[in-house]
Amino acid sequence: MLHAPLRIAIAGLGTVGIGTASILQRHADLLAARAGRALKIVAASARDPDKPRDMSLTGIRFESDALALATAPDVDVVVEAIGGSDGIARDLVTKALENKKSVVTANKALIAHHGLALAAIAEKHGVVLAFEAAVTGGIPIIKTIREGLSGNRFTRIEGIFNGTSNYILSTMLAEKRPFDAVLKEAQEKGYAEADPTFDIDGIDAAHKLAILAALAFGTPPSIDLVYVEGIRHITLADMEHAAELGYRIKLLAIARLSKRGLEQRVHPCLVPIASPLAHVDDVYNAVSVEGDAVGRVFLEGAGAGAGPTGSSIVADLMDIARGVTYKPFSLPAKDLNVFPYADMAMLKSAYYTRLTVADKPGVLASVTAILERQGISVRSVVQQPHPTDENAQIILTTYPTTEASMSQALQAIETLESVVMPPHMIRMENA
Amino acid sequence: MLHAPLRIAIAGLGTVGIGTASILQRHADLLAARAGRALKIVAASARDPDKPRDMSLTGIRFESDALALATAPDVDVVVEAIGGSDGIARDLVTKALENKKSVVTANKALIAHHGLALAAIAEKHGVVLAFEAAVTGGIPIIKTIREGLSGNRFTRIEGIFNGTSNYILSTMLAEKRPFDAVLKEAQEKGYAEADPTFDIDGIDAAHKLAILAALAFGTPPSIDLVYVEGIRHITLADMEHAAELGYRIKLLAIARLSKRGLEQRVHPCLVPIASPLAHVDDVYNAVSVEGDAVGRVFLEGAGAGAGPTGSSIVADLMDIARGVTYKPFSLPAKDLNVFPYADMAMLKSAYYTRLTVADKPGVLASVTAILERQGISVRSVVQQPHPTDENAQIILTTYPTTEASMSQALQAIETLESVVMPPHMIRMENA
Repeated sequence: MLHAPLRIAIAGLGTVGIGTASILQRHADLLAARAGRALKIVAASARDPDKPRDMSLTGIRFESDALALATAPDVDVVVEAIGGSDGIARDLVTKALENKKSVVTANKALIAHHGLALAAIAEKHGVVLAFEAAVTGGIPIIKTIREGLSGNRFTRIEGIFNGTSNYILSTMLAEKRPFDAVLKEAQEKGYAEADPTFDIDGIDAAHKLAILAALAFGTPPSIDLVYVEGIRHITLADMEHAAELGYRIKLLAIARLSKRGLEQRVHPCLVPIASPLAHVDDVYNAVSVEGDAVGRVFLEGAGAGAGPTGSSIVADLMDIARGVTYKPFSLPAKDLNVFPYADMAMLKSAYYTRLTVADKPGVLASVTAILERQGISVRSVVQQPHPTDENAQIILTTYPTTEASMSQALQAIETLESVVMPPHMIRMENA
Repeated sequence: MLHAPLRIAIAGLGTVGIGTASILQRHADLLAARAGRALKIVAASARDPDKPRDMSLTGIRFESDALALATAPDVDVVVEAIGGSDGIARDLVTKALENKKSVVTANKALIAHHGLALAAIAEKHGVVLAFEAAVTGGIPIIKTIREGLSGNRFTRIEGIFNGTSNYILSTMLAEKRPFDAVLKEAQEKGYAEADPTFDIDGIDAAHKLAILAALAFGTPPSIDLVYVEGIRHITLADMEHAAELGYRIKLLAIARLSKRGLEQRVHPCLVPIASPLAHVDDVYNAVSVEGDAVGRVFLEGAGAGAGPTGSSIVADLMDIARGVTYKPFSLPAKDLNVFPYADMAMLKSAYYTRLTVADKPGVLASVTAILERQGISVRSVVQQPHPTDENAQIILTTYPTTEASMSQALQAIETLESVVMPPHMIRMENA
């Protein structure tokens, strides 16, 4: 029955649901020609049935209860566009899979937290659980890792996974404005939520990282083992100092599988201007994947929005329409490997530090003495007057050392009498 | 029988064949776990059976006649790694498809010239003809267009598709050396062939462009309709002038479907330094794809070599192992649309021109008068002494105009008595 239409139900008619429906309706003929069968929206659900929407619901059955879509006999695939790691979204996806309906979702929190359990249910019932849209919006990175680079053993994934944070950081530097002002503007423009915690504190990026790491390394998504640090403490001064040193500051998500174990971390980084990641600006997302055969492959594109997210959801639907099946995390859920957790204390990195110190002789000597006692080599150091008071600033970068050594050094530096504020530390990647 | 091993024959044991075999042997367990079945090399062919090779042929039947692989009853898939648009490669692929064997190839010339006919044969016999490795090496751009972005109507594809040319251009600028010297070094390093025509005259890039345009726009590959201009005439002086203006010179391949028809062109371009394409250096390749839903997606990676090419061939084999089927050009071969050819004369572009003129008053006025007569607006003009003789140089850029107007203007300029050499013109993209 591969030539009968694929019957789709869309749960949730917000940006994602409408974005998906819009492509399915606008490109109905093109998609049918490419897939060899029609993709038809037969049902939809939303909290408020009467809200005005940019789509025609003619011929689409409306359910006020999303869960009804999971059991509807005339539905082949459910698109979950409700959101949230638990509640209705989780119930709907579970129930749909148990009823042998494939599920396509953009819900990163759901997959990061419950992906393993849901994958097992999908596999048990022989249906697809697809989540291309959950990670980096329109960039087809899930397919790239699962299929396009499936001949590789992956060694490292890194990228810019949160458009809101990237917009804030890019705009701070481009317009020479402080964090708070740019955040406020982003909220007014609708780029950032009223409560921006998920975006700017790195949680959203951590969800996406856990999903990609699971897929690339064949391990269950383990969001609790992601080290997360957001961008609230990044100042315009840091960005300007970084620029003078030849770097940009970006919120990176990095996953690496090495002898130390599985390393997953989200934090601001100084990235060399020559790196492709340094040039990813505005709300764009990017991913760099390293495989043992292919080397490094870099992808960049829109990380959010109705069109890009809808593009990824429709791509998943097209695969299902063509009868393609796969395990959600490439390996069967039961065969995913749990790797030792690579402790952040053992991370090797170079560091950028900005110190605010009393402007008197001997401070720099005390600081460098502490670093040398920890075996940390200084790469560059600049001392200059503080822009707004009578203190001085020391901008210091190091050669790679362990996070443990650096933490201890910074703790010791903080206790120096002439250091007037807690030191400001940002890691340097590929430095 | 999806769990029986996929039985693979490799025709040709050069860089590509060995690169593929090496991944299949090294990652046998990983690939079997991901695909749900083993990928097994059962047979191979090469011109010289006794040549020392970096792979074990133990357990692999060796055929001196590649065509024997096309009919061997114990072979499910043939990897064609011989090369050339005709001859044995074409015979082998045709015969294998007719014998209901899927074919995986890295042969861009074959697909660009005979892709339509071969796709029809594959579709008739219900087997796969896969060519991810034929375009931009390890970058999974075929899968990205055919599947990852399948919800989009594509509007434009552009990229850097030839690593050799890109290496030469990048190195000229980085090391301030002339074209001939860098080409010679590239030949010594093995980056360029003894006869570098295919690479540096744009033919290789044109093959790849025709394949991607076919896939993205649903049209038969039409290599004969690609406008092709190589990089032999690019001088270090041009690259330095471009850099001063904020540009890099890259050999771009561009395909666009517009009201004018299907536009396919390969030629050097001035690309703004802010463009991601400007930062693709060395032997790297890159592709930028524009879709109506997703916007622009940019991919960068290694464009050639045993590992990257093998990575793409193995990805195609993994799809076949998982039972995935598709039409080679996404739409059925019989449904591909032939679009009107967009005449280069009607192309709208901005232009960079370098003129060598006698150093006397009035030349610039004559030149700009000619441009104005053609309705061409000058954007910038710099006049300076010629570095090696008593002539002067005029470096001139224009606002967008038609290729026809610019050609006429340049012809008129060439006839000016004070213009001592034919004008040097390079198009400017996204200027």
